[in-house]
Amino acid sequence: MTPPQINGDRLLARLDAFAAIGATPGGGVNRQALTRGDRKARALLTALSKARGFSVFQDDMANLFIRMEGSDGSLPPLLIGSHLDSQPAGGRFDGALGTLTAFEVLESLADAGFVPPRPVEVVAWTNEEGCRFAPGCMGARAFVEGNIPAEWEGLRAVDDGALFNDERLATVAALAPDLGHRKLGFPVIAYLELHIEQGPSLEREGIPVGIVTGVQGTRWLEVEFEGQTAHAGTTALEYRRDPLKALTAALAALYATVMSENAEARFTVGRIAVTPGSVNAIPATASCTIDLRHPQADVLDRLEESIRARLAEAAEAEAVSVAIRKTVDMAPVTFADDLISALQIAAQKAAFRTRSMISGAFHDALFLAGHAPSAMIFVPCRDGLSHNEAEYVNPEDSVAGARMFLASVLELLR
Amino acid sequence: MTPPQINGDRLLARLDAFAAIGATPGGGVNRQALTRGDRKARALLTALSKARGFSVFQDDMANLFIRMEGSDGSLPPLLIGSHLDSQPAGGRFDGALGTLTAFEVLESLADAGFVPPRPVEVVAWTNEEGCRFAPGCMGARAFVEGNIPAEWEGLRAVDDGALFNDERLATVAALAPDLGHRKLGFPVIAYLELHIEQGPSLEREGIPVGIVTGVQGTRWLEVEFEGQTAHAGTTALEYRRDPLKALTAALAALYATVMSENAEARFTVGRIAVTPGSVNAIPATASCTIDLRHPQADVLDRLEESIRARLAEAAEAEAVSVAIRKTVDMAPVTFADDLISALQIAAQKAAFRTRSMISGAFHDALFLAGHAPSAMIFVPCRDGLSHNEAEYVNPEDSVAGARMFLASVLELLR
Repeated sequence: MTPPQINGDRLLARLDAFAAIGATPGGGVNRQALTRGDRKARALLTALSKARGFSVFQDDMANLFIRMEGSDGSLPPLLIGSHLDSQPAGGRFDGALGTLTAFEVLESLADAGFVPPRPVEVVAWTNEEGCRFAPGCMGARAFVEGNIPAEWEGLRAVDDGALFNDERLATVAALAPDLGHRKLGFPVIAYLELHIEQGPSLEREGIPVGIVTGVQGTRWLEVEFEGQTAHAGTTALEYRRDPLKALTAALAALYATVMSENAEARFTVGRIAVTPGSVNAIPATASCTIDLRHPQADVLDRLEESIRARLAEAAEAEAVSVAIRKTVDMAPVTFADDLISALQIAAQKAAFRTRSMISGAFHDALFLAGHAPSAMIFVPCRDGLSHNEAEYVNPEDSVAGARMFLASVLELLR
Repeated sequence: MTPPQINGDRLLARLDAFAAIGATPGGGVNRQALTRGDRKARALLTALSKARGFSVFQDDMANLFIRMEGSDGSLPPLLIGSHLDSQPAGGRFDGALGTLTAFEVLESLADAGFVPPRPVEVVAWTNEEGCRFAPGCMGARAFVEGNIPAEWEGLRAVDDGALFNDERLATVAALAPDLGHRKLGFPVIAYLELHIEQGPSLEREGIPVGIVTGVQGTRWLEVEFEGQTAHAGTTALEYRRDPLKALTAALAALYATVMSENAEARFTVGRIAVTPGSVNAIPATASCTIDLRHPQADVLDRLEESIRARLAEAAEAEAVSVAIRKTVDMAPVTFADDLISALQIAAQKAAFRTRSMISGAFHDALFLAGHAPSAMIFVPCRDGLSHNEAEYVNPEDSVAGARMFLASVLELLR
């Protein structure tokens, strides 16, 4: 038997074939979860799988599983994959590259006549993006929970289209009843996912593969200062209670300190607004969101505390009030040491240059880590762009990532 | 002949009668320029005038003039008045108090059988507010120009209502063809206007009358920083070009210096926005408006220059670009010394406590000053609130203002 080898041309052709499903004029894809485009992509993957003789299963969250049998079919499978859904103006690689790389690994094993000691399964998780039905990573979350959270029942699609859309999660998730049925959260020996970095580091450093050691924790705060609106022309400084003055003072201080004093911290204000929003009126309220991330929970605690203190100080200085609401609190995850060691060994054997890195974004693997040892491999993407039609991965980087992924799978199967 | 005297009860009853036209559930008025409510208010004032034997005229901008004849009808009249239109959720006193006070003065002169040496005319200027048709002070502007600017032709109403509104300025301004016709910009000897302060100073200092010595200059800037959007979680500090970081740094510095270093300056940011406006995306653009005011043109120049320098510095520090557009540039106006002296003499004779002050807001008088010697009298309003349904003037302050206004008119007619 020749050792299994990635068929680069086949992988690239598959990427093109899937990019054509839900293709947008701007060169990206709109294949939001459980839309016609997403279903078409699932159907294509199912057809390709059946044509190769793999069996296909689906669980109650419409997660899709493609199984290559192992010599001991009673052992829990090694699970590899990612997702096929996209953002409304998404890129061709976010999710699809990981899913199709995992499928290419399965095919390359089959090409070589390789029979793994245990089953290997490719998964395409449902609704990773979370833009059509919130929250994101629904498929992975339900898998890990072992059931579908009650609050998702009756959940309705939020579509951008002009037409009212009454599709409900429960209905659309009941897809493809012709497939084999799987229980949510069946045992797996480990989970491995390849994904584009969605950041600029690998590309700028010229490194083809990132070994992801964990996912940083994320907290979202909604901040609202309330002061008093008044006429811009008639109100002297001593009579002003300007909430935007307080907010900008606090933000300027936070921008100047949070990330520069904590190299691993990420501090982002993605939304800001005032009311009433009139050129010649001092605002009544000024609000913003804060997205705060760090790989360590205790550091996140300290950062959040100092942010809250700074906001309160700024409010006091301007005699305005401030209300802070935490809307997201996702703990950091550290991936399994054993798995990371295996990936490093695989990289050494195959002579891949790699770097260790923390994932800045959420991924299905973040949730899977609560169910089985999990890890991720990143490949570079152009300019760090993602969630964007211009998202792009060099063909060489796609193929190199797949080779590294195959090497890792073989290492994990040893 | 007894000296003319303000009839306080009549003035307060008139204020109530006009507040009923376009009354809102919140206790204010919605009587935007040239709407049915505004027309009804004009019709009521016309009827009251005719009942008193005053003649009523209108010019091509629908400015309304009520004439009390003088002993020498060939002399240019003394013009007194304000406006009757309101903001969509406006107060009962902004404009109406000045117009009805001027009319009360005319009636009190007539009550006393006083024949002025020259005609006295009350004016209700069209569209001071500028919210339904922009810009504001249209009537006063056209009067001073002597014609209607070409760019106002075909101007269409911007109504808040749900129904599409195709009312055009040219059509609706051609009101009440039964009235006498007046040329735009006929000669007047002087213009005097009473208005609520729309700021907190008189009320807080317990002074019933402000003698306005001028209107500060106003400049509006639209500022837009442009950087690069990127993922909040995956983009390290060194890869960020965050336009909101630049904007908040600049604003924090400007808030901390402009008004504290220049007691007469007014610096207000009434609008702020970012794109794309996603919690977990570094903004691509961050923009705001700046409303800058000062009574002296040279200081305004210096302030604008230092604001531009600060914005450019902040842009450079974050490697983002900044574009600054000046959308309004209204020069400061100093009212006529002679008129101000006459008001001060009138106040002394009538034993009114007054203070000199600069108007922070625009008024019709700001434009009239380009046509004839002009001045203004301010009365206190509760909490400095205006452009608000809760706008309120104590009855005693309304009546005291009218007495001061009558004393001033008598002084100017001497």
